[in-house]
Amino acid sequence: MILTVTLNVALDVTYGLPKIEWRETNRVTTVSCRAGGKGVNVARVLHSMGVDVMVCGLAGGVTGDAIRADLAAAGIPNRLVRIDGESRRTLVLAEPDHATLFNEPGPRIWGEDWGVFLTTFAELIVDCQALVLSGSLPPSVPDDAYAVLLRMAADASVPGLLDAEGMPLRAGLSGRPAIAKPNARELEAVVGRAGTTVPELLHAAGELRTWGAESVVVTRGADGLVASTPDGNWAGVAPERISGNPTGAGDAVAAALVLGLVEGQPWPARLADALALGTAAVRADSAGDVDLDAYQTLRPAVRLEKL
Amino acid sequence: MILTVTLNVALDVTYGLPKIEWRETNRVTTVSCRAGGKGVNVARVLHSMGVDVMVCGLAGGVTGDAIRADLAAAGIPNRLVRIDGESRRTLVLAEPDHATLFNEPGPRIWGEDWGVFLTTFAELIVDCQALVLSGSLPPSVPDDAYAVLLRMAADASVPGLLDAEGMPLRAGLSGRPAIAKPNARELEAVVGRAGTTVPELLHAAGELRTWGAESVVVTRGADGLVASTPDGNWAGVAPERISGNPTGAGDAVAAALVLGLVEGQPWPARLADALALGTAAVRADSAGDVDLDAYQTLRPAVRLEKL
Repeated sequence: MILTVTLNVALDVTYGLPKIEWRETNRVTTVSCRAGGKGVNVARVLHSMGVDVMVCGLAGGVTGDAIRADLAAAGIPNRLVRIDGESRRTLVLAEPDHATLFNEPGPRIWGEDWGVFLTTFAELIVDCQALVLSGSLPPSVPDDAYAVLLRMAADASVPGLLDAEGMPLRAGLSGRPAIAKPNARELEAVVGRAGTTVPELLHAAGELRTWGAESVVVTRGADGLVASTPDGNWAGVAPERISGNPTGAGDAVAAALVLGLVEGQPWPARLADALALGTAAVRADSAGDVDLDAYQTLRPAVRLEKL
Repeated sequence: MILTVTLNVALDVTYGLPKIEWRETNRVTTVSCRAGGKGVNVARVLHSMGVDVMVCGLAGGVTGDAIRADLAAAGIPNRLVRIDGESRRTLVLAEPDHATLFNEPGPRIWGEDWGVFLTTFAELIVDCQALVLSGSLPPSVPDDAYAVLLRMAADASVPGLLDAEGMPLRAGLSGRPAIAKPNARELEAVVGRAGTTVPELLHAAGELRTWGAESVVVTRGADGLVASTPDGNWAGVAPERISGNPTGAGDAVAAALVLGLVEGQPWPARLADALALGTAAVRADSAGDVDLDAYQTLRPAVRLEKL
């Protein structure tokens, strides 16, 4: 089983409407809701590939109930700890050709809730093959939360993938994740300097490895990815540049990387899978969905360069 | 007790943020939620004035639960019938100087739900002094719903105020409401012609009376109101033009009119109360709130003209 942690789980809501009249009253044509947050998206991709997954994290209020109900409807098991606060929603205002996003702040985590989560996590981690830690931390959860969880996983000999940014990424590295997966912007922010060429990204990725990550995979959107690992460094580009929905592509990359880790695939195979699956996610409508037919077609065409 | 009916009850959500970046990702600063819909706002105003009220209507899903919880927290009793569908939300994106509104469509009313509502309504109406029917109808509720409810109220000798537009207003008039309270735009739409002068509005109001309304009060925003009643016709303007939040001013007018009806006030007193309370609502931040100090100050300054 692969355990994904989403501490700031969300209900992702999309309002569809033909055209927004700003500063006026608008009638929403369609409303769709589903469980979201980066770790939930990773679990959804893995589940669609037939992999045994478990979602854990913190969820509360009526929004938390809606998140649990949606996961149950999708057949994705969860052990989301019930908290006193109300879980957040995200809102996409989707017009035919563009979208505006709104992210609510997460609930504060009060009293016993964090301790109950740690107890739940400790129970779950012993039965896992790998751990995925994704996304932002709710207000009041300590910045080193991911480091704490990675150390608990290491005690159970479970390797972890860390997909975070800012202080949760910086502090999380001391938990020695098997893989850290920032995007280029997040990498730049955490090492504190600009640079988007392959050598610059490799250098910055190397810095993350000195801080504790065993390997670092940097995603670059349509430019592909760069990886710094104990087995060597690679750069790869997607087999085609396609237009579509980039939300969730990074989560599909994380899903492929953790699956390659569990299956003991060599790095070139993991990276090629990640590029093909990330591209297949861009073709799908919603974060957490992948076009598996596209993945099969794209996979043989991926090109990787050993650096 | 005054019974207010809100068939398309809503959870009114406000996102506060300093500035919206359209077509980008926005972090919401504050999220506030409360029970809404025009009948809920009327009940809230009456409750704040110490009047015994009851909210009824249809509510479902986790949003319905949030609506019930908010009403309970405000001390406003409700008999909202639980439906299979999910109640709607409204969303205000509130920047410091302007707002953009989004209204979700209401849930369809399926199966037994409408019959259960009618049974609940029949139980409640016998203990009431007056009935307020406000706002839109959910999809699939028949257009003559308000006429049906007004006839049930008449059988129990309970007078009704109707605040609706379009077909629900037009069809509702055959239920012979004691008061119909359209605004000038709604009045024009239902009689099918333009005209915003006092004589034009009075003429159109007279048409609504021939269709079944005993009296008609037409609200005109900052221009005040016009009333056509069996006791005569009046026009009145608010004591001052104030800036603020006009949402809910019409609901405050409805609250004052129904209270004057219950208390047997003469029409000039009812109308003066309505103008002062409507103006006091514009001063308040949220629909359903009124500034009662402002109401007391404004009330003696209202001028009414008998036509």
